[in-house]
Amino acid sequence: MRLATIRLPDGGTSAARVDRDRVRVLPWPDLGRLLADPNWRQLALVGETLPGEEEPQYAPLVPHPNKIVCLGLNYASHIAEMGRPTPQYPTLFAKYDGALIGAHDPVVLPAVSDAVDWEAELGVVIGAPARHVPPDHALDVVAGYTVVNDVTVRDWQHRTREFLSGKTFEATTPVGPVLVTPDELPPGASGLAITCTVDGVVMQHSTTADLLFSVARIVSYVSTIITLKPGDLIATGTPGGVGAGRSPEIWLRPGSELVTTIEGIGQLHNRCVREERPALAPASSTTR
Amino acid sequence: MRLATIRLPDGGTSAARVDRDRVRVLPWPDLGRLLADPNWRQLALVGETLPGEEEPQYAPLVPHPNKIVCLGLNYASHIAEMGRPTPQYPTLFAKYDGALIGAHDPVVLPAVSDAVDWEAELGVVIGAPARHVPPDHALDVVAGYTVVNDVTVRDWQHRTREFLSGKTFEATTPVGPVLVTPDELPPGASGLAITCTVDGVVMQHSTTADLLFSVARIVSYVSTIITLKPGDLIATGTPGGVGAGRSPEIWLRPGSELVTTIEGIGQLHNRCVREERPALAPASSTTR
Repeated sequence: MRLATIRLPDGGTSAARVDRDRVRVLPWPDLGRLLADPNWRQLALVGETLPGEEEPQYAPLVPHPNKIVCLGLNYASHIAEMGRPTPQYPTLFAKYDGALIGAHDPVVLPAVSDAVDWEAELGVVIGAPARHVPPDHALDVVAGYTVVNDVTVRDWQHRTREFLSGKTFEATTPVGPVLVTPDELPPGASGLAITCTVDGVVMQHSTTADLLFSVARIVSYVSTIITLKPGDLIATGTPGGVGAGRSPEIWLRPGSELVTTIEGIGQLHNRCVREERPALAPASSTTR
Repeated sequence: MRLATIRLPDGGTSAARVDRDRVRVLPWPDLGRLLADPNWRQLALVGETLPGEEEPQYAPLVPHPNKIVCLGLNYASHIAEMGRPTPQYPTLFAKYDGALIGAHDPVVLPAVSDAVDWEAELGVVIGAPARHVPPDHALDVVAGYTVVNDVTVRDWQHRTREFLSGKTFEATTPVGPVLVTPDELPPGASGLAITCTVDGVVMQHSTTADLLFSVARIVSYVSTIITLKPGDLIATGTPGGVGAGRSPEIWLRPGSELVTTIEGIGQLHNRCVREERPALAPASSTTR
């Protein structure tokens, strides 16, 4: 089963089921609200066929997750290119929902940076509350898998030791187009080809089999810290091939076509646009 | 004006106005929902007096903020004790709302750690949407100020380079008891005494005048990255005196009485209890 949040002609959004040849609108305002019902798997089987034959307009897969948990340094190839040692524990950081965009929406390149980078990632959406779930049972609380590009403002990421500032710029992170339920994929969505192209050039090409911490380990680990909730999104880290790891470095530019694909799940296709608002002078410790 | 979210006898919560001698229940389920109305300042003037004379039961001040933005390294005294250089930019990290507790709730010490530390902080609650707000106008979008203790699981904070894991354990972060509107405080809530005691011993005692990045600079800086929304909480960093900075180190223990006070705003009073759930084995890169 493939589920999504789609934009409606009236300006609102709706949960939807994306079948092979048609889209069915489900009576919840978004996928997160559907997943909040413990019976979501059954409830998603109903729905009205969307009028018209057009491609649905995808909103961010879950527009307002309670949590967005991201992993850094979870593929050996990316750890090497960033010059880091192999981590003993998952490196977790957050993102706010204002960063999320739909599968075909423009990526907004902030006016304050010329160093915006791509990071193709497998996304995991939680389907049931989970705390202290052991790894052996962790996949039971996964609603499904999706595609994320954790687009990163590299210079802001490295302004301080904490990644957050460079990871949560407004309207930078496409998620979708759909959630694919686990029954359609290998266990833990392992062994799927993951690819990122920029203007048709393959920048990242790897397999989710190379995750250092598997989906089950990640879900279990996060649930040691805090209760995972239905609709929560986990971005599992990116493989090698980011722009910051190249010599010379390559960055996204206005007009860049960013395509992110995971085998068996789907594809994000986003065009980069420059933010139109003027840049603010950066805060400095010398001026209060 | 002093606003809060209080627990009701029926198990729900309500926004409330805390006047000198009584508490008035306001017709919103929590303070975040009240602040979402652009007319919240006027709407907060009505309300019914709460029956009874008892102390209100405080819920987390805003139980479900869209964002919790935390600063690290924002007092010279704390930067020194943590052995860091003076930062050029604000160090931002996040916390999830599942970490929040009320002003008098127990702080849950996770079963997986014996190194839980205190961090008294000035909290800022946003009262209007804000993006690209210059520092000179940033205080206009502040709804008010509160008290936060950014209780930190130090060993998990330092498991990786990213603070998040040690900063967002469930039910660790008291916020409240009230929001105090800016008209009752100095501009930017600067110059207020901030104190943290553990079992009656003063561990932190400083003044918010010593913030390296002022409230106005922080709000402006964050708004460069993403839109601040009503109810968003910013924890502005902690002064020197944390347990990790002492020799030998001191940690919170079951039964510890943690009292956090900011002059003119209020006091958090929390007792520490040990988590009753068994600890999970930590995730390790050697076992998938």
